[in-house]
Amino acid sequence: MSVGEQEAAAVPRDVREAYAYLGAVTERPTAQVWDLVDSVGPVAARDLIRDGRAGETLNAQAESRREHVDGAALLESAATVSARLVVPGDPGWPGYALAPLDRPRGRRRDGTGGVPTALRPLGLWWRGPADPATELGRSVAVVGTRAPTPYGRTVAADLSAGAAAEGFTVVSGGAFGIDAAAHRAVLGVRGTTIAVLAGGVDRLYPRGNDGLLREVAETGAVVSAQPPGTGVTRYRFLDRNRIIAALTGATVVVEAAARSGALSTAAWAAALDRPVGAVPGPVTSVASVGCHLLLRDRGAVLIGRTADVVELAGAMGETAPPPAGEATSWDGMDDVTRRILEALPTSGGAAPAEVARSAGIAPTTVRAVLGRLMSTGAAVRGPEGWRRSGDGGMQLSLPVS
Amino acid sequence: MSVGEQEAAAVPRDVREAYAYLGAVTERPTAQVWDLVDSVGPVAARDLIRDGRAGETLNAQAESRREHVDGAALLESAATVSARLVVPGDPGWPGYALAPLDRPRGRRRDGTGGVPTALRPLGLWWRGPADPATELGRSVAVVGTRAPTPYGRTVAADLSAGAAAEGFTVVSGGAFGIDAAAHRAVLGVRGTTIAVLAGGVDRLYPRGNDGLLREVAETGAVVSAQPPGTGVTRYRFLDRNRIIAALTGATVVVEAAARSGALSTAAWAAALDRPVGAVPGPVTSVASVGCHLLLRDRGAVLIGRTADVVELAGAMGETAPPPAGEATSWDGMDDVTRRILEALPTSGGAAPAEVARSAGIAPTTVRAVLGRLMSTGAAVRGPEGWRRSGDGGMQLSLPVS
Repeated sequence: MSVGEQEAAAVPRDVREAYAYLGAVTERPTAQVWDLVDSVGPVAARDLIRDGRAGETLNAQAESRREHVDGAALLESAATVSARLVVPGDPGWPGYALAPLDRPRGRRRDGTGGVPTALRPLGLWWRGPADPATELGRSVAVVGTRAPTPYGRTVAADLSAGAAAEGFTVVSGGAFGIDAAAHRAVLGVRGTTIAVLAGGVDRLYPRGNDGLLREVAETGAVVSAQPPGTGVTRYRFLDRNRIIAALTGATVVVEAAARSGALSTAAWAAALDRPVGAVPGPVTSVASVGCHLLLRDRGAVLIGRTADVVELAGAMGETAPPPAGEATSWDGMDDVTRRILEALPTSGGAAPAEVARSAGIAPTTVRAVLGRLMSTGAAVRGPEGWRRSGDGGMQLSLPVS
Repeated sequence: MSVGEQEAAAVPRDVREAYAYLGAVTERPTAQVWDLVDSVGPVAARDLIRDGRAGETLNAQAESRREHVDGAALLESAATVSARLVVPGDPGWPGYALAPLDRPRGRRRDGTGGVPTALRPLGLWWRGPADPATELGRSVAVVGTRAPTPYGRTVAADLSAGAAAEGFTVVSGGAFGIDAAAHRAVLGVRGTTIAVLAGGVDRLYPRGNDGLLREVAETGAVVSAQPPGTGVTRYRFLDRNRIIAALTGATVVVEAAARSGALSTAAWAAALDRPVGAVPGPVTSVASVGCHLLLRDRGAVLIGRTADVVELAGAMGETAPPPAGEATSWDGMDDVTRRILEALPTSGGAAPAEVARSAGIAPTTVRAVLGRLMSTGAAVRGPEGWRRSGDGGMQLSLPVS
């Protein structure tokens, strides 16, 4: 069964249309939209908002768009560029990755604090063959300035190609400079790269990267939280940076000036408890000032070579992968894998951070091992997070403990 | 009273001759030499060792040299290049700085552990007008590879000149490359720079830096733990690195290859609880590999400009120095200065680390403030460490607390 078929089976057409509507009717997801979806479901929520019966606040939030947005039309528009909308309930929906956006670290329980609450997007527009769940499970963001030095371009390309060769999906923002160097290098080694755009996936921006982004869409994916037809604005770039930080296992900044957008991606990664790495450069280079700031004052890890990226984003599983196939049986499984599998619920789902806490194993390791367990069928990722696969063979060899 | 007169007054000639002998009779100070000095004093210790009556172990340690070393001759030899021997008991003797060598961090109480015990030298041969106590109280080591890139040379020069302009003594090893760039830059801004050599202060090594080191000796100091006439060996370079780390408030590594001697200086600085900084560079540059190692794995602070050096080595006192003259009275003294002065003993002496613990103030700040208090006469540094000055004016305005 293909990913498309799975999704069709899991999420009815009208639910997907409803999410398309809900994700477009306000500029960003709001607490009121999510509250309504959580209480009455997406279809009823869509109907209430569209008909202006969703209460005063929501009516005001949706007022300018509620009669003009057409979820079905958006899905059709996406289909013309072979794009689809991945929504909660789809097997590929990265809910576990996006959930921390609702309550980033640094945000106090009373809602105050330095880090703004962002809220999960209501869906991700996805243009390309890459499967979200598979590809994001082992991924790293490589981002940086639009005006790099030849040094920065070279390092971005080397690290990205290297990470791709190690099986990582390289996620970036499709921009000129470091982003483009990262995407291009991954395409060069036939790896998987994903570009998260600030505008619609049907509007490959910037125009100068049209050819590059087309190739990314053909082999990996071009992704956006904004519906087809949406143009770019300054704040949509910042929203895009946040999505990049949330979707990936770690963020690496290659070159960044003092006020580079890449620093916002890094700040969000840190707020979402994702490791942040930065590539140093000459202290005389303005293009490295942002990276040195991250290294000096914000706890970023120094990244100098591919192995550093692998360690940052992928952790221990990398250096000692268990022999293929063994992860389908509890016997012969390494201790770390076993503890992670034991920590997984058999129904519902858990975020990697919960699994990590429960198993007493570093989150980066947990993410890497979960990706491997999924590839062997021992774990599955559902709308509520990760759970142990119901596979009987697994249960048979479960030790009494 | 000049420094020379003070020292002459404090330490009798025969004691100085004895230290000259004791520091030369074994290649390095040994626990047995120090034990004997501590129990019978330097003169008797010298006599016992010279006469072969110091016990089996010491006899063996000193066997090859005990009849050939002549302390008085060494002092005379030093005098021909206007050098002297600073010893315990001299006002300038940096005993507080050298003491941690006896028990570096990482060394367990039972004497085992990863960090070797080094032991304080029995004296420092000092060639130049710089006063040890004054100049080392506010100092930073700038070290690095003998084979730097033009970038490393430039950064070493900029940081060293900048630190000197901020009133720091810049200490280095007198070697080619980064060391020479550091010394030269400080001379260029008429600052104080000190070169610690692996061999005797009468043998300016390397020969190619003869002119530079001569100028350092004329304005700052050329220093060695080894007596005049001593040539260089590989392990004397390592001993020299240790002395540099001990004498300075912080160590900054500018460029260093993976196995550079500068990394040993940094490792010793860390073991002696001195802050370590490292200058990043291109990850493609082999000359920066050692610095990146320090930044990535060994907790070094990223250094990009002079202000970073000041913060590393000098701390808070820098940014808000109290108006000149006020430190002679408790009234009008800033809170930090006051707490440090109150923590000083009125007799005996205390190491900056003890003062820091007692006052609840960072050691780097304590060191900076002590230097200032000494310059105003409010604190003095004696053989047992720092103490409050007996000056009556100070006592008169001491608040009841």
